[in-house]
Amino acid sequence: MSSHGTHDSKLRVLDAVLRPRSIALIGASNTPGKLGFKLLKNMLADGYTGKIYPINPNDAEIQGLKVYKSVLDVPDEIDAAVIVVPAKLCTQVAEECGKKGVKGLIVITSGFSEIGRKDLEDELVRVARRYGTRVLGPNIVGIMSNSDKLNASFAPFLPYPGKPSLVSQSGALIVAMDAATYLRRVGFDKMISIGNMADLDIADCIEWLDADPNTTCISLYIEGLRNGRRFVDAARRARTPIVAIKAGVSAHGAAAAASHTGSLAGAAKVYEAAFNQAGIVQATDLNGLFDRSLALSLQPPMRGDNLFILTNGGGVGVLATDAAERLGLPLHFAPADLQAELRKHMPEYGSAKNPADLTGMAGKDWYYDCVKAILTHDWVDGLVILYCETSLTVPMDIAQALHKAIQDSGATDKPVAIAFVGGEQSSEALHWLMEKGIPAYEVPDKAVDALAALREHARIRSLVTEILPFPGGRSSDLARETIAAARAGGRGALTEIEAKEVFAAYGLPVARTVLAKSEEAAVRAAGEIGFPVVMKIVSPDILHKSDAGGVKVGIKDAEAAQEAFRTILSNAKAYKADAAIHGVAVQEMAPFGTEVIIGSVDDPSFGPTVMFGLGGIFVEVLKDVTFRVAPVSSTQAERMLTEIQAAPILAGARGEAPRDKDALVQLIMNYSRMILDLESEVAESDANPVFVYEKGKGLKVVDARIILKKT
Amino acid sequence: MSSHGTHDSKLRVLDAVLRPRSIALIGASNTPGKLGFKLLKNMLADGYTGKIYPINPNDAEIQGLKVYKSVLDVPDEIDAAVIVVPAKLCTQVAEECGKKGVKGLIVITSGFSEIGRKDLEDELVRVARRYGTRVLGPNIVGIMSNSDKLNASFAPFLPYPGKPSLVSQSGALIVAMDAATYLRRVGFDKMISIGNMADLDIADCIEWLDADPNTTCISLYIEGLRNGRRFVDAARRARTPIVAIKAGVSAHGAAAAASHTGSLAGAAKVYEAAFNQAGIVQATDLNGLFDRSLALSLQPPMRGDNLFILTNGGGVGVLATDAAERLGLPLHFAPADLQAELRKHMPEYGSAKNPADLTGMAGKDWYYDCVKAILTHDWVDGLVILYCETSLTVPMDIAQALHKAIQDSGATDKPVAIAFVGGEQSSEALHWLMEKGIPAYEVPDKAVDALAALREHARIRSLVTEILPFPGGRSSDLARETIAAARAGGRGALTEIEAKEVFAAYGLPVARTVLAKSEEAAVRAAGEIGFPVVMKIVSPDILHKSDAGGVKVGIKDAEAAQEAFRTILSNAKAYKADAAIHGVAVQEMAPFGTEVIIGSVDDPSFGPTVMFGLGGIFVEVLKDVTFRVAPVSSTQAERMLTEIQAAPILAGARGEAPRDKDALVQLIMNYSRMILDLESEVAESDANPVFVYEKGKGLKVVDARIILKKT
Repeated sequence: MSSHGTHDSKLRVLDAVLRPRSIALIGASNTPGKLGFKLLKNMLADGYTGKIYPINPNDAEIQGLKVYKSVLDVPDEIDAAVIVVPAKLCTQVAEECGKKGVKGLIVITSGFSEIGRKDLEDELVRVARRYGTRVLGPNIVGIMSNSDKLNASFAPFLPYPGKPSLVSQSGALIVAMDAATYLRRVGFDKMISIGNMADLDIADCIEWLDADPNTTCISLYIEGLRNGRRFVDAARRARTPIVAIKAGVSAHGAAAAASHTGSLAGAAKVYEAAFNQAGIVQATDLNGLFDRSLALSLQPPMRGDNLFILTNGGGVGVLATDAAERLGLPLHFAPADLQAELRKHMPEYGSAKNPADLTGMAGKDWYYDCVKAILTHDWVDGLVILYCETSLTVPMDIAQALHKAIQDSGATDKPVAIAFVGGEQSSEALHWLMEKGIPAYEVPDKAVDALAALREHARIRSLVTEILPFPGGRSSDLARETIAAARAGGRGALTEIEAKEVFAAYGLPVARTVLAKSEEAAVRAAGEIGFPVVMKIVSPDILHKSDAGGVKVGIKDAEAAQEAFRTILSNAKAYKADAAIHGVAVQEMAPFGTEVIIGSVDDPSFGPTVMFGLGGIFVEVLKDVTFRVAPVSSTQAERMLTEIQAAPILAGARGEAPRDKDALVQLIMNYSRMILDLESEVAESDANPVFVYEKGKGLKVVDARIILKKT
Repeated sequence: MSSHGTHDSKLRVLDAVLRPRSIALIGASNTPGKLGFKLLKNMLADGYTGKIYPINPNDAEIQGLKVYKSVLDVPDEIDAAVIVVPAKLCTQVAEECGKKGVKGLIVITSGFSEIGRKDLEDELVRVARRYGTRVLGPNIVGIMSNSDKLNASFAPFLPYPGKPSLVSQSGALIVAMDAATYLRRVGFDKMISIGNMADLDIADCIEWLDADPNTTCISLYIEGLRNGRRFVDAARRARTPIVAIKAGVSAHGAAAAASHTGSLAGAAKVYEAAFNQAGIVQATDLNGLFDRSLALSLQPPMRGDNLFILTNGGGVGVLATDAAERLGLPLHFAPADLQAELRKHMPEYGSAKNPADLTGMAGKDWYYDCVKAILTHDWVDGLVILYCETSLTVPMDIAQALHKAIQDSGATDKPVAIAFVGGEQSSEALHWLMEKGIPAYEVPDKAVDALAALREHARIRSLVTEILPFPGGRSSDLARETIAAARAGGRGALTEIEAKEVFAAYGLPVARTVLAKSEEAAVRAAGEIGFPVVMKIVSPDILHKSDAGGVKVGIKDAEAAQEAFRTILSNAKAYKADAAIHGVAVQEMAPFGTEVIIGSVDDPSFGPTVMFGLGGIFVEVLKDVTFRVAPVSSTQAERMLTEIQAAPILAGARGEAPRDKDALVQLIMNYSRMILDLESEVAESDANPVFVYEKGKGLKVVDARIILKKT
């Protein structure tokens, strides 16, 4: 309950910044062409009902408003201050705003970290924080809101109205997309430029927009995140659909993005994993961002896999069918009763199967009857309606019939998307449909993609609700002691034995391994473990144990163990005369199983991140691995097992028994908790190989590696 | 030279059909709403300069033209007859046209094979062929040509003018796309509806359009091909760029396409391979068909991989960079001298690396100077220019500066594509650029995709010129004898020994294998081959030899061979008492190598088609295989080796020596020639496994299988 209260009070502060009742414009100007002139003009243009206070030491009146020399002179309360004064003056302004009790600063001004002046930016935030003032920006276009009739930005006008709201790290893109909304007649309620994210970031905007009744889809343009885990948490908790485009997913693009915003760009696969865990639908290009925002903002999620396609043209029906398969929604034939019903409304040479092809003869009545029959049938989860402009029909008539059929069906829980292929008349009909709340596109693929996005939204939303209990403390202490001991010895990595101790402390089933410092100890250990055993050199200076002749397998008895100890030590010395040698590891010889690898990286945006894949050729040659940000839930762990290409091998390919899936899920979850718990210590780790046995027989970590973070 | 002459005379006949100097409209009508009325109106609408003869037994004059009762009554020569009379009358009409010497029939009429009346269609073609008349259709919209000012179709108007020409198997799509060309202002010179392809097919249209000076790109909408190899040959020979969309590439879509046109839809992978071999650039959706047609029709091919991206917005620059990598054109940093030159035309915080970011400060002069510098630099192979609408610049000014820079650079051999993200003003600027011959789009990804298409065109064109010598006859006789003998025995498949004989006849290196019918013969054979040997049951009734206990490996001496012979025979009898047993195959024990598989299918559209992949888990679990239509050239065979996911294994992964690539290329080429030569006999075949050794050491076919076609 108290966290709920905190959440509410946080949202109230964000309200003051993003939906201010009063605004000071610091740097307001009487000179056309100046930013301070344009901003004021824009703020006055659309009917904003809050108070506006221009601030400027040199003028008495600007654009009909009384001007104040400082915010401190304003007699009333100020929610937000829009700042356009030069960067070097911003700190002083923040100080005054703080004293005045201004709740938020919208810092349009550029010239901060984006050109290397992080010092100025840090100073600005430090001052603001002292007064509890929040900062949006700096280096932003500003904020725009249709429902508040406020354009507090230097973009020329409010966007075409719509139900999604956009948050963008690129200001140039906001200005360009603002204009594009009129061309496409696909609009936004709000456009928020987030710039350098010195204080308020995308996670804050998600939380606030999720509570905004005028926003039904949150659209994000992301270049790089600093606190990825907070972002994932905010998105997970949101009930509003979220769609995001991540710029800089290519190797070269990441470099370009880095030079552009100064943000660190994470690896594409990690972002994809994080979006998945956060329940965010992805867009791969700008058109996709527009198109998917439109669909998610207007239609309910698609709750099952049964997509139906209705068309008057076989060609576009087939293209849409191909697109459905490509987008993960392969079609199935409709049930017989639905087919029978549809056949009443088409010529004999039509098809009712799915896609249902009414043929070029289809008029508005056939469309009406079929749409109603399809949407009221239980089997159907979503509908794509296609229309090829013909000389026998008027596109607007068809559009009106479709809208009426959707209304009359009463099926408000099933998403519908429409595509009309044709000219000006079709285009007008599409715009009319969009006004009526139906996503409508110029090509069949886009209508299918709209439903794919709505299906993906339903799918990933169902995966993000799981609660993740975190295991308790004792094992963590043990792991930390092992690490501390290694650090005390001046080492940056653990030995295999130490790494296995850490793994074991977090419940990972490691092959039993004992460090022997003498022949006698080795023989004793082998006896306790039980022959046959494996013996390996333990030396922080020998990383490639096999190359050094430091590994012996299948040691069957005491004599062989003695012999192996001697050989391993002499090989190790021959390999590297000055190597520090801890001894020889005596390890149970785990029966051979399917080799998998699990490991971790410390992602610059998301922190501890788990990697999983099949071992050997699959990881080394095919790079067939998948990622998740820690902690990983059981449902996400299960998805990891199915999304690698080699998944059929785990499921039991070529007549083999399926591998132990439950043990793998447990392994991934525990591993993810381990690396999260040891976030401050572990830079990189892996268990490679892990032998996985058939269902019910578990798995065994055979080798282990942990590289520590630099202190 | 004589084939050239034939080609020319064929083109002259096609000229008469597709660019007729005189047309009879059979079924012309005076009744508005009737097809014969609409057709005549359309033919008269756009300034067609040829003669038009309406034919109708009941009228004297229609739309101001004299009407004839029959084509036989027309006093002049007739190139083509457009036919709209009911299907049942078409044969009689064809007869009269034949007698009149009409060169081509454009059969608009539907009601033929598309509704199951293949008999009517066959009859029509039979009559036409008797007179040497060619048939376009039936079941088509007609033909449209801007350069001939002729709309001989029931589509309402000629398309917006453009340089590509479209050939479509879907009539509905032609009508809808016709209207869409005005909305997009992306036009076509010609639109040809090809319908049921009873006679003239896509290959004919490719040949004719390739010689048409008004067509600079051939755009194809394909649902299914009957004579795929002829199509590949025609496309290979064309010098005009070709872009195609194949509808029905998904499993369900193929079924839908089949029910729609009656065409057999080939597997997606085979189509992809065939397009590759034919030098055809693929489009995956309708927007892609429009966008790529525009690029290919206006710009030269991109001859190298160095793509440069110039932008005024970091965000769109990064999105374009991502798109470039996704589309197979990853960016590289520009050379230092080019960067130095570009830095003169941007603020200090811009970037000259590639993408070059001029920042939002960029005006037309910076754009002009940079475009000229980039296009005149040797390193650059192609350029994408991006512009985000800003409040400081006017889109049309930028467009004009870009056009002038491109002109002034004189670089006519380097493709350029442009994207403007913005509103109405940007949209107008884009249309202006398109009129000037520069492909221009509303989002950065599409401009990058335009260059990707131009690069793909250059790449695949460089691969299709290779001449394919076909090996001579003696070996083929041997193979045919083996097959005939099996057929004579009433068998539908060859035994392993027979299949190896056929393979060997075509130069495939098979493991030496001898059929032994007695213990003595087995021992003798093993002695000749040299121990160790492998022994396997040879029985047309036992397909899974191992399951039957019919395989013994590592047979070291005569005694073991005797023993193996006895065991194999008794196991086989125990497995299947009534199996016909030919004997036991004694085979050299090939040293173990990397397992690959090569096989063939008889594709319904393209005929004999080669499949290649790595053996075992790669083919069985990962389905990691690639296809080519036979015959396969050496360059295409090399591409097959690199396009499977497991390609790094052949190249020598994990420290192993590279596999013998030359031997694999030879294997694929010879295999493809074998299946083409034996097209009438072989339904399906494979060599599995084939052991491939390191570079220079060749390969060995260890097992072989050939299934014969049903007679």
